[in-house]
Amino acid sequence: MVKKQQPSINLKGVQVSDPFWSKVQTLVREVVIPFQKQVLEDAVPGVEKSHAVENFRIAAGEQEGEFYGFVFQDSDLAKWLEAVAYSLALHPDEKLEKEALDLIALVGRAQEPDGYLDTYFTVKEPDHKWQDLQECHELYCAGHMLEAAVAWAEAAGRTELLDIMKKNADLICSLFGKDKRRGYPGHEEIEMALIRLYRLTGEKKYLDTAGYFLEERGTEPSYFKEEAENRGWTHFGMNPDDREYPQDHAPVKKQDKAVGHAVRAAYLYTAMADYASEAGDDEMYEACKRLWRNIVDCRMYVTGGIGSTVHGEAFSADYELPNDLVYAETCASVAMAFFARRMLEIEAKGEYADILEKELYNGILSGMQLDGRRFFYVNPLEVVPGVSGKLPEYKHVVPERPNWYPCACCPPNVARLVSSIGQYAWGENESTVFAHTYLGGKAAFANGAVVSCESSYPWSGSVKLTVETDKEFTLAVHIPAWCKNWSIKAPDGLQPELRDGYAYLSRAWKAGDTVELTLKLETRRIYANTNVRADAGCVALARGPIVYCFEQKDNGAQLSALRIPRTAAIAEETCTEEKLAGMVSLTLPGLRLSSGPSLYSEEPPKMENVSLRAIPYFAWGNRGPGEMRVWLLEQAD
Amino acid sequence: MVKKQQPSINLKGVQVSDPFWSKVQTLVREVVIPFQKQVLEDAVPGVEKSHAVENFRIAAGEQEGEFYGFVFQDSDLAKWLEAVAYSLALHPDEKLEKEALDLIALVGRAQEPDGYLDTYFTVKEPDHKWQDLQECHELYCAGHMLEAAVAWAEAAGRTELLDIMKKNADLICSLFGKDKRRGYPGHEEIEMALIRLYRLTGEKKYLDTAGYFLEERGTEPSYFKEEAENRGWTHFGMNPDDREYPQDHAPVKKQDKAVGHAVRAAYLYTAMADYASEAGDDEMYEACKRLWRNIVDCRMYVTGGIGSTVHGEAFSADYELPNDLVYAETCASVAMAFFARRMLEIEAKGEYADILEKELYNGILSGMQLDGRRFFYVNPLEVVPGVSGKLPEYKHVVPERPNWYPCACCPPNVARLVSSIGQYAWGENESTVFAHTYLGGKAAFANGAVVSCESSYPWSGSVKLTVETDKEFTLAVHIPAWCKNWSIKAPDGLQPELRDGYAYLSRAWKAGDTVELTLKLETRRIYANTNVRADAGCVALARGPIVYCFEQKDNGAQLSALRIPRTAAIAEETCTEEKLAGMVSLTLPGLRLSSGPSLYSEEPPKMENVSLRAIPYFAWGNRGPGEMRVWLLEQAD
Repeated sequence: MVKKQQPSINLKGVQVSDPFWSKVQTLVREVVIPFQKQVLEDAVPGVEKSHAVENFRIAAGEQEGEFYGFVFQDSDLAKWLEAVAYSLALHPDEKLEKEALDLIALVGRAQEPDGYLDTYFTVKEPDHKWQDLQECHELYCAGHMLEAAVAWAEAAGRTELLDIMKKNADLICSLFGKDKRRGYPGHEEIEMALIRLYRLTGEKKYLDTAGYFLEERGTEPSYFKEEAENRGWTHFGMNPDDREYPQDHAPVKKQDKAVGHAVRAAYLYTAMADYASEAGDDEMYEACKRLWRNIVDCRMYVTGGIGSTVHGEAFSADYELPNDLVYAETCASVAMAFFARRMLEIEAKGEYADILEKELYNGILSGMQLDGRRFFYVNPLEVVPGVSGKLPEYKHVVPERPNWYPCACCPPNVARLVSSIGQYAWGENESTVFAHTYLGGKAAFANGAVVSCESSYPWSGSVKLTVETDKEFTLAVHIPAWCKNWSIKAPDGLQPELRDGYAYLSRAWKAGDTVELTLKLETRRIYANTNVRADAGCVALARGPIVYCFEQKDNGAQLSALRIPRTAAIAEETCTEEKLAGMVSLTLPGLRLSSGPSLYSEEPPKMENVSLRAIPYFAWGNRGPGEMRVWLLEQAD
Repeated sequence: MVKKQQPSINLKGVQVSDPFWSKVQTLVREVVIPFQKQVLEDAVPGVEKSHAVENFRIAAGEQEGEFYGFVFQDSDLAKWLEAVAYSLALHPDEKLEKEALDLIALVGRAQEPDGYLDTYFTVKEPDHKWQDLQECHELYCAGHMLEAAVAWAEAAGRTELLDIMKKNADLICSLFGKDKRRGYPGHEEIEMALIRLYRLTGEKKYLDTAGYFLEERGTEPSYFKEEAENRGWTHFGMNPDDREYPQDHAPVKKQDKAVGHAVRAAYLYTAMADYASEAGDDEMYEACKRLWRNIVDCRMYVTGGIGSTVHGEAFSADYELPNDLVYAETCASVAMAFFARRMLEIEAKGEYADILEKELYNGILSGMQLDGRRFFYVNPLEVVPGVSGKLPEYKHVVPERPNWYPCACCPPNVARLVSSIGQYAWGENESTVFAHTYLGGKAAFANGAVVSCESSYPWSGSVKLTVETDKEFTLAVHIPAWCKNWSIKAPDGLQPELRDGYAYLSRAWKAGDTVELTLKLETRRIYANTNVRADAGCVALARGPIVYCFEQKDNGAQLSALRIPRTAAIAEETCTEEKLAGMVSLTLPGLRLSSGPSLYSEEPPKMENVSLRAIPYFAWGNRGPGEMRVWLLEQAD
């Protein structure tokens, strides 16, 4: 029977002191979180008003006014609160904690006596509660606030929000289920949140209700159609017959292709994995593995991006991975990291950690400008100014990170992920401590082990793990699949046992014992499956977990006319220029093709030798507008 | 001052007896025209009703009922009538003529006393006439019926429709112009038609009104905005501020980029060329040349297709020529043939004849199934079943020719073009007879010359022109730019003078004199300008005027994984299989790449030797569904 092998790490035990991630966390703490608070309070001139906090004030009866914003506006505050909880665990900040607790108190005052909490319906449509689960995000918003509540309890040790949200969760559990009201959310989220609440409280009804939402989805007759007919009104005009968009086309245990809205899908799969392991549901776990395989084998960009089309921000078809029409929402990569972590918690397989790293260092991080002030929602692999962001098919693929959107889903999602990275880097069970990736700092585990880490990752591959306690346990260190050359030096010549991408070292450790892992980071040429027509004839470069890209800034315009010779020697160089300082860039000899002026000619294009430079994909778009490509044509020698 | 050098050929003087085109014309006569008549009369089960004839009956007061169909439904009957006129010139058919004349009489009875003719407004919105020129196609429908009227007068020698439409044209001329009502059509067409009427009648007001419509377009303040504000209702909800869609963004003489709806654009440019030459307007002619250059140098598919996006069925940006998202409407290629012919009539330059041939043998002909029963509106250069016609971005790119559409613009446009091909193949002025392409049969020219032609074109390059009259004149024969190897044998060792892609042979010809042109048709490799990112690294094949493509039927699936070696020897073969019998197909050694099962790998794909087969592009999609590609990756040796 499937069983969770690793519970989630308690962030309170994790200190981060990492040359790479500490910088990002500082950015989140010093720039993103304060900026987002100002946005939520409508205090940033030039940014379209959020009204999120104001909506709560109105719902609490402390302010006159109308609800403003999307039906899911409450979730912006929820995600901010969750990010703050993690950030406080890393870096206590009394002022921030006080501000957040004031907002939590406001959330409590906006709650209705029976536990109901959704400012849109409280303020604007009190008679329409729970009637439009497909479109109206009540369960989604509740899920986000509940996740924040669990985060506050676990990471910040404060239960004010938990008290509020338990009441809300109790209401939801009392309303929905077999022999109760039928329904499940249009946008999955509550399922994950209820399972987190179950884990925190041990109260099984939360797990059962999550299970109900999961198992009811996709059953016949269509619930969304039923509720649409019953209510006779619509919020967004969504078609309940489009059952793939919300993964409602089949019972989740029968699903085998990742379809529909990519963020919804990956939130669902995450909850399915959670539920499978908590409830010991093998059939559910098999579905998770099938869906994982479909994404990873057929529907994922090399950067970890998922979602090939703007239409429904959705998956499209196997191997359809257009680099320029792409969606690859930042939130979808965040959601894939959730899914990967849940799969890792069930089985420590290197593949899950590999994808987790792919998301962390590429698809997620590319969402945020290096200064933390602007965010991509869409993460393209090919950008051409004058086309991207401009022509109708490419309107969504903006060539520079835009200012804060009214639909501000991605920035706080990045913030909460980055702030809680300890939960992704480390794992544990009774007998074992897992390093899924190498996060500098120190972690104290529930099993009593304490391990510190010094790492030069991802730019070079020196990782030193020091055991800080006398204790017998197994230390399991992820060996990434991309790494062909690695070595481990452990005390007393201890040799690791290799299994599924992890090196297991079992021993009665003494405080001060060190394990030195050395990964050789060679630049790799990546080829796509020949079913991927968008990448035919092309090669991409990667080094360690980092995928690279080519920008016009370094390589001139018309990147589609460049080629990488099959045997080109690639030089690695640590950047000194301001924006990219400390990152490793790649320099290699390449070819540039150029034709005469006519549109078509019998003359093959001429080739000239050029020098090419690639920079980390996550850092693209930080040096002014211009073309960008991940995949370049390869010239066979 | 710009001046028309060649008036349009009178089709009554042209007989067609051509191994290639006669077959197509027979198909149009025996299949397309009768089938379309049945559609117009709602007599084809399973085809969505047209109601076009019924609308005229209701407008004539001979039938009870409501208008049904698009606001431009009348134009379907008009284009059918025009095709019939040309077909009758080629092949008299009393029964067809009688049927058509009956319908013409019906058109006359549907006309209002003042000459107004548009069944939509007569039946449905009589109070809204001329109030929505942007959306409502009154001038467009009038233009098509007027073209049909001129065609009947010129090609079929019957003036019944001309009498009706002159009255309609007179009404239009009395309403619109400087010091009269302001306006111009949202969909250009009337301009071409009025100039044809001017040429037929010599009445200058028709030319002047055409000139007014042309010159008023794009002036300030925006007429479409003005009329939208005045009327306060909308037909399609078009945005009058989208001024590029109807080429209303600048006065036409100032335009230099081909923008907006491609059919509208090319109809406009055709009328501009007509007007420039008839009115001696050099500035207008310069604009035509600029727009021609922009299309031919930056915005045309190798098949002659124009229009890169379904959004507005429009041009997009220079060098943006996606093969799979393409629009390349059949009607737009028809319109480009119009434009090319008008430019040829002004100046006999080989480039215009080259593009004319490109449209005739590729972009236009690909629109029609080989059996004449189904039609493409969109002519893709890459098709992948499961993607094309299915995924949202590709919905319009159906992988097989669909059944008759309710918006039946393309089939009758192909029918009228094919039936009047003599006007495109031949040209003349006082002193010269032009063979722009090689159309078997005989042509009697207004200048008194009679020339017959025997041709094996386009499959091989033997063309024998025989002068059938004793007469001194110049025979000018187009030498296509693609032909590097050609020879001409003329009587008494007469040597041609070569100028701008034409071989000029001047002589006092005697009846029976022959000119033998031999063109060597070698398969050519075509490379796109390196600005075209969609074709980067690729090569296309052409032979004579025919562009080739690769189908799954011959080459297996996953055409994007195929490569053509740079030096592959290409064998030409005359097909014997039923559908393609008589066509030349190409066989060549190629490479197929294949990868392992994983989505991304460090292992370069393996190559295996395969045999590739290419067939004429126009014949694709006739042998069942499957992938198709015009451009394949090239393997440098």
